[in-house]
Amino acid sequence: MEAKLQELKTRLIEINDLESAGALLHWDQSTYMPPGGAAARGPQLATLAKLAHEKFTDPAIGHLLDDLQPYTMGLPYDSDEASLIRVTRQDYDKAVKVPPDFMGQIYSHTAAIYDVWTKARPANDFAIVLPYLQKTLDLSRQFANYFPGYEHIADPLIDFADSGMKASTISKLFAELREQLVPIVQSITSQPPADDSCLLQSFPETQQWSFGVNIIKKYGYDFDRGRQDKTHHPYMTKFSLGDVRITTRFNENNLGDGLFSTMHEAGHAIYEQGINMAYEGTPLAGGTSAGVHESQSRLWENVVGRSRKFWHHFYPQLQTQFPAQLGSVPLDTFYRAVNKVERSLIRTDADEVTYNLHVMMRFDFELAMLEGRLAIRDLPEAWRERFKSDIGITPPNDRNGALQDVHWFSGTIGGSFQGYTLGNILCAQFYDTALAAHPEIPAEIEMGNFTTLRTWLTEKIYQYGRKYTAPELTQRVTGGPLSIAPYIRYLKTKYGELYQL
Amino acid sequence: MEAKLQELKTRLIEINDLESAGALLHWDQSTYMPPGGAAARGPQLATLAKLAHEKFTDPAIGHLLDDLQPYTMGLPYDSDEASLIRVTRQDYDKAVKVPPDFMGQIYSHTAAIYDVWTKARPANDFAIVLPYLQKTLDLSRQFANYFPGYEHIADPLIDFADSGMKASTISKLFAELREQLVPIVQSITSQPPADDSCLLQSFPETQQWSFGVNIIKKYGYDFDRGRQDKTHHPYMTKFSLGDVRITTRFNENNLGDGLFSTMHEAGHAIYEQGINMAYEGTPLAGGTSAGVHESQSRLWENVVGRSRKFWHHFYPQLQTQFPAQLGSVPLDTFYRAVNKVERSLIRTDADEVTYNLHVMMRFDFELAMLEGRLAIRDLPEAWRERFKSDIGITPPNDRNGALQDVHWFSGTIGGSFQGYTLGNILCAQFYDTALAAHPEIPAEIEMGNFTTLRTWLTEKIYQYGRKYTAPELTQRVTGGPLSIAPYIRYLKTKYGELYQL
Repeated sequence: MEAKLQELKTRLIEINDLESAGALLHWDQSTYMPPGGAAARGPQLATLAKLAHEKFTDPAIGHLLDDLQPYTMGLPYDSDEASLIRVTRQDYDKAVKVPPDFMGQIYSHTAAIYDVWTKARPANDFAIVLPYLQKTLDLSRQFANYFPGYEHIADPLIDFADSGMKASTISKLFAELREQLVPIVQSITSQPPADDSCLLQSFPETQQWSFGVNIIKKYGYDFDRGRQDKTHHPYMTKFSLGDVRITTRFNENNLGDGLFSTMHEAGHAIYEQGINMAYEGTPLAGGTSAGVHESQSRLWENVVGRSRKFWHHFYPQLQTQFPAQLGSVPLDTFYRAVNKVERSLIRTDADEVTYNLHVMMRFDFELAMLEGRLAIRDLPEAWRERFKSDIGITPPNDRNGALQDVHWFSGTIGGSFQGYTLGNILCAQFYDTALAAHPEIPAEIEMGNFTTLRTWLTEKIYQYGRKYTAPELTQRVTGGPLSIAPYIRYLKTKYGELYQL
Repeated sequence: MEAKLQELKTRLIEINDLESAGALLHWDQSTYMPPGGAAARGPQLATLAKLAHEKFTDPAIGHLLDDLQPYTMGLPYDSDEASLIRVTRQDYDKAVKVPPDFMGQIYSHTAAIYDVWTKARPANDFAIVLPYLQKTLDLSRQFANYFPGYEHIADPLIDFADSGMKASTISKLFAELREQLVPIVQSITSQPPADDSCLLQSFPETQQWSFGVNIIKKYGYDFDRGRQDKTHHPYMTKFSLGDVRITTRFNENNLGDGLFSTMHEAGHAIYEQGINMAYEGTPLAGGTSAGVHESQSRLWENVVGRSRKFWHHFYPQLQTQFPAQLGSVPLDTFYRAVNKVERSLIRTDADEVTYNLHVMMRFDFELAMLEGRLAIRDLPEAWRERFKSDIGITPPNDRNGALQDVHWFSGTIGGSFQGYTLGNILCAQFYDTALAAHPEIPAEIEMGNFTTLRTWLTEKIYQYGRKYTAPELTQRVTGGPLSIAPYIRYLKTKYGELYQL
């Protein structure tokens, strides 16, 4: 059994090597690659993905898993070995359902549509992506149909990102959340808008960079096992547990953009850096779901990084960094500015309160497109209408409307967005539990010390990687299932105080 | 046939995708990778190399080549199709002789010894690399023995770098060269040394960077199809014909280091950027031999970049860039400084005249080690003795002696060094031919214009990639075989004038 487990690991690590190489090619593509490299890079990425899929769906992996099955019976559910075999089995059973040729089609199409989208978005030209997006929808449906027996056609797609979740469960959860959120948004936006002009001054990039780096070092992001580079659409990526990188971007006329982007991606990275090094190269070495991953980026960006106590400590340093811009701006004004709630066009720039409305409409569109209730050609108009009714403004163009997010232009339609809101919900639930265990955390944050919080998160969540599913983890950590109550309480407390609700 | 040729190309491009991914992982390793990434990177590189080798030695490639053989009979020798099949056949016949398991051993050992060397060199500790280097020698011999029928055991290893060359031919050529070189070195070094103190001042890196970039842009290095980054040991690498990158390093106390390194690597890159784009992803898309590659790096670094006419144009710009350091230094002093001939320790820093003595001793050591005449444990002492007798000084330590070059610590013993001197010889021979065709080239260089030279080199050499072997190319371009005469003439003219020989 030892030998078979070793063989399984050797094969999994080889597959991971191919995936990690693909991740590095993608990172390079979005950071340093010269324009001339573009033509060959897409096919190179497709080759690596295809080989990784071929190797993972090799029947030999299935035989090894079969042979190892009796062995796991004698092991505790949460032993590393049993967990490795269990998680690999789940991934394998999903992967073998999709024919390699179909995966090849997905890879080629993704390279093609992404390339078209990068031109279509700045040109505000939905028409040129239309036939490609139609094909994405067709491929997404076909993909889902390799997993028959679903309740909703989106379920298999959702399951890849947030294992165990279904369209029906999420729709119900989102409806409850919406019911609570809409009155909050309405009562805030009926008031005069917060003054965020202090953020909209000239802030040189190099100073923004060093201030952000200083913060995420304090958070615990380890620059010996990662680095930060600039890109257009920031993300976190990993080439091994010892090399977890983040990307960011800066706007020299808006301090918030780069600062909170850096904190957000560092949150994702601190999660991955906290995974047990013994899982290196195996399917256990990753975040357990899109929702749990996002819970950590949002926790470090919002719950910590936009809190009054955080800025109580860091604002004087920020003022020292930018004396001309912020020297005479009071802390309270700055705190209100970084927590301004407003009806805005761009999801990634949206505040904590309205953010989920952006997500929910995308989630609903995904269901509607997959069900055939919404045609691709009608998406831009549907976007404008729903945006007007939910957010209260009408996008002036498709660039900031249906062409806004990369997701549908680099993956499937279905399963792409729910994780963002699940992350917001989970983040408050996890943080509540952390506070119950360590009531000293807010006082530590006020001193710029994040050790207790990070250590608790590492111990309770990060170290396990994919050992537990999101529902298992939620139950283990918080003692109960996913619940919107802590999140609503968090929003009502924070924004109730800010806006005297 | 069309379908079979297409299938062959598809397979070759997929193999090239894996090799290009490996090249990018290596580039990242030596430029941006954080320390924590090191542990996983070696195995990742080994996986990619192993898969590329497995896929290239797939019998299906052999069958395709067999099936295509009759088709090539009807094609001109130098047609793209016939050349692709011919060059692929040669590579394939070599590759299948080496068992995949043995290649696996090579990859693992290379990762291990390289890692040890990176620590041993700064620590000046030959003892810790000794057992590893012994294994490199054993593996190199075993590698050669997969190619039985050789005249000298180094021949198969030499053939991988400089196809068609043999130890006996090179030894004879080097002996002739040595006979001419030694008196030149002696008569120069018996004179008082040139004054290069003007180079040994403080030169801020950012200004060095921009001056170097300006020069290589004028040479024709295309930054839309490449980029320059910093590393410890500069090299050129390629991820596709549209993405040919160079690396460089700077010494803020020696202007020459970074400047000529940049020109050297740009020379390699201009060659690769000049290859016919139709060869993308196939074995034709590369430099044809180590010697021809080096002929181009040395041409742009030395024949052009250390010429009086070059500096006649660029020296005033350099003075403007560094007025405090060079404003009062006459052109002639600067020209003598960048062409200072001296007995020095480091091959890569050596001047044009003594450089080949550094190479020849390494070449002789490789033969002696492979033959068993020189034991690894005796290498440091042999290095000191030979250095003393050839170069006239004794290395004070192994760091600048037997541990100096990366080659034996990242590849085989055998075939690693001859290309440098072949490059010097070829470079003069090609340049002579260029001047015969275009006598206006020196006058153009004096105006900072390199178009005629680069265009001629592209047309005669670069575009063909690996279509012609180095001997074929030499014959086609110069009308004769490899000859040391132009190189000796070049050295005698240039250094005769500089040192009144």
